[in-house]
Amino acid sequence: MKKAAIIGGTGYSAIELIRLLDSHPYIELAKIISQSQHGELIDETYPHLATYLIQPMQELHIQQLIQEIDIVFLATPAGVAKEIAASFLDTSVQCIDLSGDLRLSSDDYQTWYQNKPASPSLLEEAAYGLTEVYKEKIKQTNIISNPGCFPTAVLLGLIPLLENNIIDSKGIMIDGKTGISGAGKNPSAKTHFSTTNENVTPYKIGTHQHIPEIEKYLSQSTEATSVKVTLTTHLIPMTRGLMCTMYAPLQQYIDTDDVINLYKHYYEQSSFIRIRKTGEFPSTKDVNGSNYCDIGAYVDKRTNQLIIASAIDNLVKGAAGQAIQNINVMNGWDEKTGLSFLPIYP
Amino acid sequence: MKKAAIIGGTGYSAIELIRLLDSHPYIELAKIISQSQHGELIDETYPHLATYLIQPMQELHIQQLIQEIDIVFLATPAGVAKEIAASFLDTSVQCIDLSGDLRLSSDDYQTWYQNKPASPSLLEEAAYGLTEVYKEKIKQTNIISNPGCFPTAVLLGLIPLLENNIIDSKGIMIDGKTGISGAGKNPSAKTHFSTTNENVTPYKIGTHQHIPEIEKYLSQSTEATSVKVTLTTHLIPMTRGLMCTMYAPLQQYIDTDDVINLYKHYYEQSSFIRIRKTGEFPSTKDVNGSNYCDIGAYVDKRTNQLIIASAIDNLVKGAAGQAIQNINVMNGWDEKTGLSFLPIYP
Amino acid sequence: MKKAAIIGGTGYSAIELIRLLDSHPYIELAKIISQSQHGELIDETYPHLATYLIQPMQELHIQQLIQEIDIVFLATPAGVAKEIAASFLDTSVQCIDLSGDLRLSSDDYQTWYQNKPASPSLLEEAAYGLTEVYKEKIKQTNIISNPGCFPTAVLLGLIPLLENNIIDSKGIMIDGKTGISGAGKNPSAKTHFSTTNENVTPYKIGTHQHIPEIEKYLSQSTEATSVKVTLTTHLIPMTRGLMCTMYAPLQQYIDTDDVINLYKHYYEQSSFIRIRKTGEFPSTKDVNGSNYCDIGAYVDKRTNQLIIASAIDNLVKGAAGQAIQNINVMNGWDEKTGLSFLPIYP
Amino acid sequence: MKKAAIIGGTGYSAIELIRLLDSHPYIELAKIISQSQHGELIDETYPHLATYLIQPMQELHIQQLIQEIDIVFLATPAGVAKEIAASFLDTSVQCIDLSGDLRLSSDDYQTWYQNKPASPSLLEEAAYGLTEVYKEKIKQTNIISNPGCFPTAVLLGLIPLLENNIIDSKGIMIDGKTGISGAGKNPSAKTHFSTTNENVTPYKIGTHQHIPEIEKYLSQSTEATSVKVTLTTHLIPMTRGLMCTMYAPLQQYIDTDDVINLYKHYYEQSSFIRIRKTGEFPSTKDVNGSNYCDIGAYVDKRTNQLIIASAIDNLVKGAAGQAIQNINVMNGWDEKTGLSFLPIYP
Repeated sequence: MKKAAIIGGTGYSAIELIRLLDSHPYIELAKIISQSQHGELIDETYPHLATYLIQPMQELHIQQLIQEIDIVFLATPAGVAKEIAASFLDTSVQCIDLSGDLRLSSDDYQTWYQNKPASPSLLEEAAYGLTEVYKEKIKQTNIISNPGCFPTAVLLGLIPLLENNIIDSKGIMIDGKTGISGAGKNPSAKTHFSTTNENVTPYKIGTHQHIPEIEKYLSQSTEATSVKVTLTTHLIPMTRGLMCTMYAPLQQYIDTDDVINLYKHYYEQSSFIRIRKTGEFPSTKDVNGSNYCDIGAYVDKRTNQLIIASAIDNLVKGAAGQAIQNINVMNGWDEKTGLSFLPIYP
Repeated sequence: MKKAAIIGGTGYSAIELIRLLDSHPYIELAKIISQSQHGELIDETYPHLATYLIQPMQELHIQQLIQEIDIVFLATPAGVAKEIAASFLDTSVQCIDLSGDLRLSSDDYQTWYQNKPASPSLLEEAAYGLTEVYKEKIKQTNIISNPGCFPTAVLLGLIPLLENNIIDSKGIMIDGKTGISGAGKNPSAKTHFSTTNENVTPYKIGTHQHIPEIEKYLSQSTEATSVKVTLTTHLIPMTRGLMCTMYAPLQQYIDTDDVINLYKHYYEQSSFIRIRKTGEFPSTKDVNGSNYCDIGAYVDKRTNQLIIASAIDNLVKGAAGQAIQNINVMNGWDEKTGLSFLPIYP
Repeated sequence: MKKAAIIGGTGYSAIELIRLLDSHPYIELAKIISQSQHGELIDETYPHLATYLIQPMQELHIQQLIQEIDIVFLATPAGVAKEIAASFLDTSVQCIDLSGDLRLSSDDYQTWYQNKPASPSLLEEAAYGLTEVYKEKIKQTNIISNPGCFPTAVLLGLIPLLENNIIDSKGIMIDGKTGISGAGKNPSAKTHFSTTNENVTPYKIGTHQHIPEIEKYLSQSTEATSVKVTLTTHLIPMTRGLMCTMYAPLQQYIDTDDVINLYKHYYEQSSFIRIRKTGEFPSTKDVNGSNYCDIGAYVDKRTNQLIIASAIDNLVKGAAGQAIQNINVMNGWDEKTGLSFLPIYP
Repeated sequence: MKKAAIIGGTGYSAIELIRLLDSHPYIELAKIISQSQHGELIDETYPHLATYLIQPMQELHIQQLIQEIDIVFLATPAGVAKEIAASFLDTSVQCIDLSGDLRLSSDDYQTWYQNKPASPSLLEEAAYGLTEVYKEKIKQTNIISNPGCFPTAVLLGLIPLLENNIIDSKGIMIDGKTGISGAGKNPSAKTHFSTTNENVTPYKIGTHQHIPEIEKYLSQSTEATSVKVTLTTHLIPMTRGLMCTMYAPLQQYIDTDDVINLYKHYYEQSSFIRIRKTGEFPSTKDVNGSNYCDIGAYVDKRTNQLIIASAIDNLVKGAAGQAIQNINVMNGWDEKTGLSFLPIYP
């Protein structure tokens, strides 16, 4: 039984980690660290955890964690995570950073996060935790940079196509739609029920920090020069769920069946990727509460465009679930360990 | 490993049974029976089950089930269930009826369901599956009448109070609020998104078939003459979740703390009942996707009324979860087996 | 053309006043006053008003208002309104206070609002703006205390019954359900989309400041000793709409048809009250965006209780619409002036 | 006062026409025609119209309509409308067809609607009712083909850009998002609350009948060869509202301010088009219940793409509101007549 700690214990990613770890057979959640709420019980903030037994949240003591803990989940905001992650470099602690701090090159981080980047050694050590694609690197490191929610849905949909030269690396459009939980638990005008209910709200048009993350890893999957994408993101009046509808010019004509088969082949070892058959598309509810990523595709012969829809639960495959999937891989366990439950429907 | 079958395989209760049984360590779901869709794979109707491996749905063959199956869940509509359940009387098959067919006396059934009642021997054999209250009877039978969703929330909230003479058995008002999934999966004007969204809709005022079910089991919990209640039910624009807010005259003055303590004492062996502390009330999201029933209470000194709120997930504790809880009890397993996961939040 | 000003210009009641006044033939909205956002254009906060032409919001200058303005709507929080309202006493300005400041006796206000009450002269001058019931008093004053949203729905449903001795004044239970806009526009954990969506949340159980307001005006409608009610309130995952389901013991037996007829007779001059026929109940969407209050009733013979459901749009009949209805009455205009539009459906 | 009739009286477009016509100063709704529900009062189906006074719905008698009625709104399904519309050709009745029957060339109609097209003379007579663009043609005809909801949002966003050679006519991607009311009032699995709530559902990918309609009118706005677009459509868990996010390659570099100015200039006579300033995008709630179309734009310098978001209320500007706007233009009234109300917010 490995001992885990969550740092940044009261955000939605943390809460989802608590839910998922509670069913994990090889991990015990030993500590929840919260600088702002230490001393409190987690169920004072979250009554749905009313009978969940864990000691009060604690302050952060790095040395104590290094001695007592095997796995650390960083569920802190970007900016904070990189300092803490650095403390675990060259220790035996396995560290999963769910923030954006370790996902970009130093230059891109500075540009898109307007902040001082993590140290080069930390960036070099960190493997990008898109489990299905980077499994080998994940096995060989102790530090994981867990992907963003939009990049997870996008990269799982596009990398197989770029690697196989199906689509052009120029002219990719990504239309992202996310449930409001993607904006975190802090109350704001943007996340107020009366503002977001019965509403579709575009946000961060052209400036979303997931753009460079998507481009970095798409570029790694093709021999073409660096990939640029157009990304828009929209708040949708639902709590969970994320869909990216993507449009990419075909390199050469291929029919929908062949695209479907290519995906199936590419992901045949990947338990969490489900490919819809020709004529069908996933909806976000199909993956609700689960670690699945469901993908559908359609070749629009009239315009020579490939349309792809990729659906995940933003808090599971887009955050806490993928973090645990990565821990499973790092420890040599079946990647489905603790994650093999069905979506909750309806 | 016990083998189970679900009869009536494509309604929401069936789908929730599939989800929950998939994580149950001692039960294997061997068959899904559907008269209307036999021959089809379940994921043709429900793509969220895309990688769920089970043979196509089958026609109902009672003799084959008796030979091959240990546990049968009847997720069929009322009226159909009683005929099928009768076939398992005097066999070794454990049978859980999720419909209303076995919940009432013959007379009341005829009055409220406008239908011919089940046979007296079947009614006599069936134990009412409100697990926390009827555990001993449940252990001694092979046929369970699984409670309705409103009765589950109501009875768990009121029985401790009536048994202890805290409230008067006259003048109990119950205001029920349910998510739309409670109305089943059949499309209708009443369940159409554009009708129910942004709407509170009272329905079956004074005529809900759960009224006699509530009264029957409340009456069993008190020495007073037969209990009558006023029940209203409202459709709320959410998919899952059910709350009953209840109002009952106090027999004598008692303060909120004492009511809370009484509940805690009454349910101290009951893993799935969580009592909110004084000043707090549960909300339906606190139990989302879980088998919990959360209860809060407040003594309104100004009016000498006790206000109780009881929240469940209508498809779990109000249907499939409680069915499995009953199976656990019947088989001598821990009642939490396969059900000990946390609510999904937010 | 009368000139109006809204003081407290950026809350939801103010926004709804702007929408409604824009169609009013005899009132021109001349000024929006906002202490916190003066100098800004209203559409910087509310882009839905993008082409609405009005000068920037202004600071509060009472003397200027007295000179330039005929009608003042106080859409400020309780506590603030009473000071401003006092300034218009003995002027020709018609003043409508939408807060709770002028609704209670001094003692009750102190108890339930934990604040210093308005001056006795102000309280004496203010007429309670439940238009259908207090029309004569409204005609004779310049200061209106506009009713709260729950009291509006409750009183319109109960006063005809109490006045006619249909129900007992003891043992009335009120189960209130409101859309989230009822909690105002300020972001908070309670109004966060991810918290309130897919959720029913009881709040202020036993402590809601609308309790004494309901009791005060119910007591005025009966010769019985002072009426006490039990009120609970629930947040429902919708933006607008408010329903009160009410339970009251019958004084003597009466059937549903007679109750319906009594309501129809009582409200036969009241354009905004619509009584559902026997067997039907209103839903909140039926009144969406309109000034209607829809009422349904059912006599539960089994328990001798009368069940009443009363539905309004909390921002229209529960706030801004009723305010304008009162202004119409004060000025001798048809009460429907500017308010005679149909509900928006679906 | 002109007399109007609605044919197909119980769908959502008809209901919205009733709401809007009720405030129109020059039109009286004299008849509601419904083949399936004639003899019934409209408020039996729609209680929100409880006090709306109109005679029972009637059967269709063309000759009687020609004699008694000035304006006919066809709110019938595609396929039915074209036969009825033909009857009014060469009469003085002004006819607005809200279905798709008259929007396409005969060939395209046959291909995309799988149905026999309208007669050539009818197609020739019908003007396409995108009011802002085809105002002159609308003034000169008695038969209007009212645009589809997606085409309205798309064409208002793209035509100014194509006419001014800002964007390339090749490579336009349109990501459409619509509230569930866009799927009509008939209950189905697709429109069931439990299916669509908390869900984003792509539908009719590559096969939506609005594709050829968009292409036909985009092609008319450019000298380039015929325009082809890629369109996807998604059901969003809200009742009303429609947003199209559009992506188009720039012909030459232009900055966002200049695009905004071009739009403002193009629509400077158009009361219902509101252009967001640089850095801002509309959301669907900004136009809720109103006839506005709100447009925002952003030049993505990194990819040389222009991103446009266009938001309407699908039942108003996307159906009933635009129909009335067209009637206003045909009759020489101000186009805002009966439509100059503000959006309902929140």
